[in-house]
Amino acid sequence: MNKHFPAPGGLYTDYYELTMAQGYFKQGLHEDQAVFDYFFRRMPCGSGYVIFAGMVDFLDALQSFRYEEEDLAFLKKQGFEDDFLDFLSRFRFKGTIIAPREGEVVFNNEPLISVEGGILETQLIESLLLNLINFQSLIATRASRIESVLKAGQTFVDFGLRRAQGLAGYQAARAAVIGGAGGTSHTQAARLYGLKVIGTMAHSWIQTFDDELEAFRRYVEIYPDKATLLVDTYDTLHSGVPNAIKVAKELEQKGYRLNAIRIDSGDMAYLSVKARQMLDEAGLEYVKIISSNSLDEYLIRSLNLQDAKLDGFGVGTRLVTSYQCPALDGVYKLSVFKGLPRLKISEDVAKISLPGKKTLWRVYDENGMFYRDAILLSGENPEETETIFHPDYEFKNTRIAGLPKEPLRHTVMKEGQVIPPERNPYIISEYRRERMRKLSPEMKRFENPHVYKVGVSRKLFDLRRNLIKSHIGKNF
Amino acid sequence: MNKHFPAPGGLYTDYYELTMAQGYFKQGLHEDQAVFDYFFRRMPCGSGYVIFAGMVDFLDALQSFRYEEEDLAFLKKQGFEDDFLDFLSRFRFKGTIIAPREGEVVFNNEPLISVEGGILETQLIESLLLNLINFQSLIATRASRIESVLKAGQTFVDFGLRRAQGLAGYQAARAAVIGGAGGTSHTQAARLYGLKVIGTMAHSWIQTFDDELEAFRRYVEIYPDKATLLVDTYDTLHSGVPNAIKVAKELEQKGYRLNAIRIDSGDMAYLSVKARQMLDEAGLEYVKIISSNSLDEYLIRSLNLQDAKLDGFGVGTRLVTSYQCPALDGVYKLSVFKGLPRLKISEDVAKISLPGKKTLWRVYDENGMFYRDAILLSGENPEETETIFHPDYEFKNTRIAGLPKEPLRHTVMKEGQVIPPERNPYIISEYRRERMRKLSPEMKRFENPHVYKVGVSRKLFDLRRNLIKSHIGKNF
Repeated sequence: MNKHFPAPGGLYTDYYELTMAQGYFKQGLHEDQAVFDYFFRRMPCGSGYVIFAGMVDFLDALQSFRYEEEDLAFLKKQGFEDDFLDFLSRFRFKGTIIAPREGEVVFNNEPLISVEGGILETQLIESLLLNLINFQSLIATRASRIESVLKAGQTFVDFGLRRAQGLAGYQAARAAVIGGAGGTSHTQAARLYGLKVIGTMAHSWIQTFDDELEAFRRYVEIYPDKATLLVDTYDTLHSGVPNAIKVAKELEQKGYRLNAIRIDSGDMAYLSVKARQMLDEAGLEYVKIISSNSLDEYLIRSLNLQDAKLDGFGVGTRLVTSYQCPALDGVYKLSVFKGLPRLKISEDVAKISLPGKKTLWRVYDENGMFYRDAILLSGENPEETETIFHPDYEFKNTRIAGLPKEPLRHTVMKEGQVIPPERNPYIISEYRRERMRKLSPEMKRFENPHVYKVGVSRKLFDLRRNLIKSHIGKNF
Repeated sequence: MNKHFPAPGGLYTDYYELTMAQGYFKQGLHEDQAVFDYFFRRMPCGSGYVIFAGMVDFLDALQSFRYEEEDLAFLKKQGFEDDFLDFLSRFRFKGTIIAPREGEVVFNNEPLISVEGGILETQLIESLLLNLINFQSLIATRASRIESVLKAGQTFVDFGLRRAQGLAGYQAARAAVIGGAGGTSHTQAARLYGLKVIGTMAHSWIQTFDDELEAFRRYVEIYPDKATLLVDTYDTLHSGVPNAIKVAKELEQKGYRLNAIRIDSGDMAYLSVKARQMLDEAGLEYVKIISSNSLDEYLIRSLNLQDAKLDGFGVGTRLVTSYQCPALDGVYKLSVFKGLPRLKISEDVAKISLPGKKTLWRVYDENGMFYRDAILLSGENPEETETIFHPDYEFKNTRIAGLPKEPLRHTVMKEGQVIPPERNPYIISEYRRERMRKLSPEMKRFENPHVYKVGVSRKLFDLRRNLIKSHIGKNF
């Protein structure tokens, strides 16, 4: 954290978390122990998987989640009472948080994060957690899908700052790198998160000179060893590429090599093939071709299917806003209070939550590939769990006895103390790559991906069914 | 600005703005005068209008757009040279900015903001301007569309923090209020921007008590005069509403009135009608009904067409991400350099920009309604402009002689000095309301709205046509 990055503070929350917090405080319930679970219900853009991301920022924000004088003054004006404000002035989150590693491959309807502690503190951080985890997981997922359609040697970078949703550009850049982007054009995000920063010239550079050739020459005078020339300001094939070739040959005379040309408009498949041909004929096989116009995983896949000759992609709006599905629907539900399992009933059966304190396991098949995820009640031994069940349909079940299992979640904060997480987005991305290799290809396709199965133990199945019955008995 | 809000700083920019800046500097061009225009090309979600917003944040950010030691150290590591870094260490934006008032009703392809100054400074702030103006204008527009479908007495508020794109929640809350929201649940945004803050209880409050009635009673003990009870935790009509009625009657005994009930799931049309009936039969006509489940302008319109009995709406994800159209495609194009008009050519004729320094006028019809917007070259007298033309088709033109006109833009920064803008989002929203009354209903409808016409003067038409011809002569 530093002055260029917002330390959200204790008011970075939905107001009702505060009114409820005062309620718990006044009722003397605030230290009664609770467990909340974070999970999302729907796969974004129909993806077969999600890349979990955002924990580093969340843990950082949690440590600045405090109430300063100006915050307390604001709350007093809203009518909060002095004893509660006094309590808030000393507030520090002292709970325990369990979560997957960033970069983990995860699925819907599994308890990804569990937050344990007093009901007041665990409730108060709900909005902060949802806000930061939902968005970065969404963008890391879209980026990972882009990586999945690249050919060998191709790379992509985040160019989205100008169309990012305001300050979301910071987190979009980080999440894009976790998902596989090589870097970002967002200079401040690059500095804050240790990302590679990328960019050379805009059309306006070309327009400030009398002609395009002059503009290219003046640019490579300054950057002889790393220039990427933008070739579509006037006419890509009749002006931009021929001028870039002239400049590249002039650079060769001086012992330099032009890095790349960039095409920002027109038919990328056609233009890249023609430009490649022109560059190769001039002996400039080493000059790369970069494309950057409304790209996403679908368009890049299409360009690659057409054998477009592209070495890199600048991806903007459609990545950083996740254009076709701009929100992950993550929620945060109470599952234990005062030691008792709690349930959120819903008219929609599939929306009824999983009660109790739970553990989450990844089960592998004989080939070392991800096979199932298993949700057990805390204390159950996964080695003794023979079968897991669809939470709503008992007849849908799978035998997992004897298969290798690993815990999918780890303690990231213990009674208010952070266990320092991996912060380097490139190392996190490498972990993601490893994990993605263990996910079957049929779950990676974009159209109707195979649904990865997440099941519950017999004990959890029964607990949930019995709690539903008892609520129905009481409330209908 | 304060410590909870990010002062973006001079690195809040696409990296190529910096490489170009060093290029201009090294070439000794950096003080050559330029004009850039901001405009957007496509109406978001097919809207017939856009609400212009984001200038206060942009002007604030511009004043913190500086390079501190840590920024310069980062740039040095990227290979920037000492003389340029020394220049940056003293960098202050000293240009002039002309823009509409926030809350103005605007249209595509008109130069909304013009930025005049040295080429280096005007280029360097491009990404910052695009990032902040695109997003807030988008959200203010969606909010204004929501307001347009409300019935008399209905209100709506922003509940979107948890699904907002990370830190974008700040600006979404502000823009929502500019667009007509009564307030926000985002407590930090409320404090920073002076917004009304809203919220009472979540399902977890209900779940922490043995039963719903107990949960309601304990809540109104703390908030007897302003409680909104969430009634859908177990069963809205058989449990939630009857319990809320009991509590409301108990409150009446103590001289208080229950404020509202909130329904967060199920069929809002059906449930609200039934709940209204139950409340009225209990003599609780004053208790309001609030709804909050995946709402946007389309769903609220639909609920109102079904005569749902709803007094207020909590609008989240679909507003704060502008779900169906999560980006406004605003761009920033060079139109003048060294006193000469500049043009960006494109394969797509409609994307060719408007050259030269321009003024923008709103033309009224005889009834005082918005009729046309007129773009003139600087120095042209709008009173002497008899006809305006479609920029591409001379035969499409409109006579505006004798009609009332007003300048749509004003100087908001003069040679680096801000002219203090209206900061109060509620006053800005009131201005928007006034302006919206002058926009014909057929431009406000959601399906195929009538297209508001924006034309150019004869002189601008000719300048653009001649510049296109001269480029074609040179480059084909």
